[in-house]
Amino acid sequence: MHFVIERNRFVHDVQNVAKAVSSRTTIPILTGMKLVATNEGVTLTGSDSDISIETFIPVEEGDLQLVDIKQEGSIVLQARFFAEIVKKLPGEQIEISVLDQLSATIRSGASVFTLNGLDPEEYPRLPQLEEDLMFKLPQDMLKNIIRQTVFAVSTQETRPVLTGVNLEIENGELICTATDSRRLAMRTSTVERNDQELSFKNVVIPGKSLTELSRILEENDELIEIVVTENQILFKLGHTMFFSRLLDGKYPVTSSMIPTQSKTSFSVQTKSLLQTLERALLLSDGKNNVVTLKTLPDQQIEITSVSPEIGKVTEDLTTSEQEGEEMRISFNGKIVIDALKVIDSEKVNIMFTGAMSAFVLRPTDHKHYLHLFSPVRTY
Amino acid sequence: MHFVIERNRFVHDVQNVAKAVSSRTTIPILTGMKLVATNEGVTLTGSDSDISIETFIPVEEGDLQLVDIKQEGSIVLQARFFAEIVKKLPGEQIEISVLDQLSATIRSGASVFTLNGLDPEEYPRLPQLEEDLMFKLPQDMLKNIIRQTVFAVSTQETRPVLTGVNLEIENGELICTATDSRRLAMRTSTVERNDQELSFKNVVIPGKSLTELSRILEENDELIEIVVTENQILFKLGHTMFFSRLLDGKYPVTSSMIPTQSKTSFSVQTKSLLQTLERALLLSDGKNNVVTLKTLPDQQIEITSVSPEIGKVTEDLTTSEQEGEEMRISFNGKIVIDALKVIDSEKVNIMFTGAMSAFVLRPTDHKHYLHLFSPVRTY
Repeated sequence: MHFVIERNRFVHDVQNVAKAVSSRTTIPILTGMKLVATNEGVTLTGSDSDISIETFIPVEEGDLQLVDIKQEGSIVLQARFFAEIVKKLPGEQIEISVLDQLSATIRSGASVFTLNGLDPEEYPRLPQLEEDLMFKLPQDMLKNIIRQTVFAVSTQETRPVLTGVNLEIENGELICTATDSRRLAMRTSTVERNDQELSFKNVVIPGKSLTELSRILEENDELIEIVVTENQILFKLGHTMFFSRLLDGKYPVTSSMIPTQSKTSFSVQTKSLLQTLERALLLSDGKNNVVTLKTLPDQQIEITSVSPEIGKVTEDLTTSEQEGEEMRISFNGKIVIDALKVIDSEKVNIMFTGAMSAFVLRPTDHKHYLHLFSPVRTY
Repeated sequence: MHFVIERNRFVHDVQNVAKAVSSRTTIPILTGMKLVATNEGVTLTGSDSDISIETFIPVEEGDLQLVDIKQEGSIVLQARFFAEIVKKLPGEQIEISVLDQLSATIRSGASVFTLNGLDPEEYPRLPQLEEDLMFKLPQDMLKNIIRQTVFAVSTQETRPVLTGVNLEIENGELICTATDSRRLAMRTSTVERNDQELSFKNVVIPGKSLTELSRILEENDELIEIVVTENQILFKLGHTMFFSRLLDGKYPVTSSMIPTQSKTSFSVQTKSLLQTLERALLLSDGKNNVVTLKTLPDQQIEITSVSPEIGKVTEDLTTSEQEGEEMRISFNGKIVIDALKVIDSEKVNIMFTGAMSAFVLRPTDHKHYLHLFSPVRTY
């Protein structure tokens, strides 16, 4: 193997692929990144067995020559060192050559690195997916969907299926749901699909995979292709492929949890409510984060939090469209803050069905998402 | 106690004083911040017994009314909660009142906090210093002196005196020295003093105190007054006083360690050397960080680092004014990087006296500081 490659593109792609590599793996070969040079270009692969990222840098792109292949071949290099090295190389170009199969030389400017390698034959093959179930989304929308759901997944391994985000497509609508059983975040969006009959449910992607995927997505509306199979999902964006395993198990049916009737409801400025709750939690011990909300006359609500050892905080907030019965409810302020942080709408509507029932928070601008919270018993 | 205070100034000063308060203290009253309101203004005090910060906010400053004192008095409030609360208050003004001595109410906008307090009579008194030994420095220069020396103090408690920076004044010149016995950083500067005879030595300020002091210093040339006593040092800046205890013990005489004769020397671009060393350490295991420097013909040097398990890196660097014998020397690259990072000069001069002797690094622009390093034995 021997090639010379344009620095910036290579650095960018190596950093992306390195995101899939974990230094804590028990499989030594997976601490490495696989480099394959063919006459078409250079392929980089990284994996931690849960997720895999593969990217291809072609010899030419448009009028630009990106790679000069001098000899085909392959090697696996320690991903952590390799990614740090290419990032810090001084020259505009990087030359990589493999003399014997277990050692590569990396040259750039006046720097010469010799790096021990691993046998590329030992590197596991990535899954080959049938492209039956395929749909498309703009990458900025996918990034937003992830941001607005993934924070609500469970971090506890007691019910593994809840550590993922559930995907469901029906009638051209993608429904993404995350819940840790104290809260639920649901986001709907319209997708492009080749097969108008496309529908599926119970496709559960690990939250960690989505967080990693989000890091390589950019803020533009380039379409990303998504292929779903029995136990893998593939996101294809240009020359990059991101694979994730899916979680086993049956995701709970959540649609029936969402209350439809309201006893009390009001709208409030998203930012004001967020800041009031943040102040209310200043005295919290960081464990239960209990906040009490009480409706007052004249479209006001009162938020209170008490921490016997430290003190007490009370704040009044003006709402609009306040309707229904008087309400006094206690909840975990932290999980409501998490949701308010990902809501882009200027105002939110909150709907209560009782002091001991789950309540719903929705943006007032549109109906693409909702958040559901369980109250906390304080007596 | 009851006063209304302008938000921005109060937030700024409370954050500064809170820097002195440690949550890990074993003395409960020191987890608090003391507030004292008199008809002249409000005084805030924080301390962790090593350092103490006291600041005063006058009722008026110039044409500006900062505080409206409604009733004199004092209280001690939990510094961690109090500092977070005032930072997040919504209004332009903050009203603080103490009803009984052990509870304060803080109002701002629609927020009302009630915070449990501690008895101000229990708060320790700050030392009263005789102002015999006093000199002045611009605060930006002091900030620079700290930055250029404090990184070199020892972090090991085996020789406590080395965990501090040693101050010495002779003939109007302030000499600051830090060493952890592998490296030494020395910085000289001219000071203003009222007493032309002023001289002292062996005034050792804990590195941690200087790091905290540096955080409240700003980038301007306002003069800071420094008062030295037997076991305390006081930095006075406007309405703020910063006290630190001094370290006991005799600081080693370091002037004799600095070699005066050179066997080999050269000058090199500071940034190039820094980047080359950073690349050389990419393969290091993070423990010994050994780098080998070898002089080559034609004003070149070669930097090499070998990590048997991972690989090897070599880089050539162009120097100027290279003089003297051929040299091959190994050293800890990390501690040389630390020094290069605080050097403002574009080029540095390096002077060797032998492969087994300490070597000197100096900026080429001026003579205000030097760095000394011990080599590492590699056989």
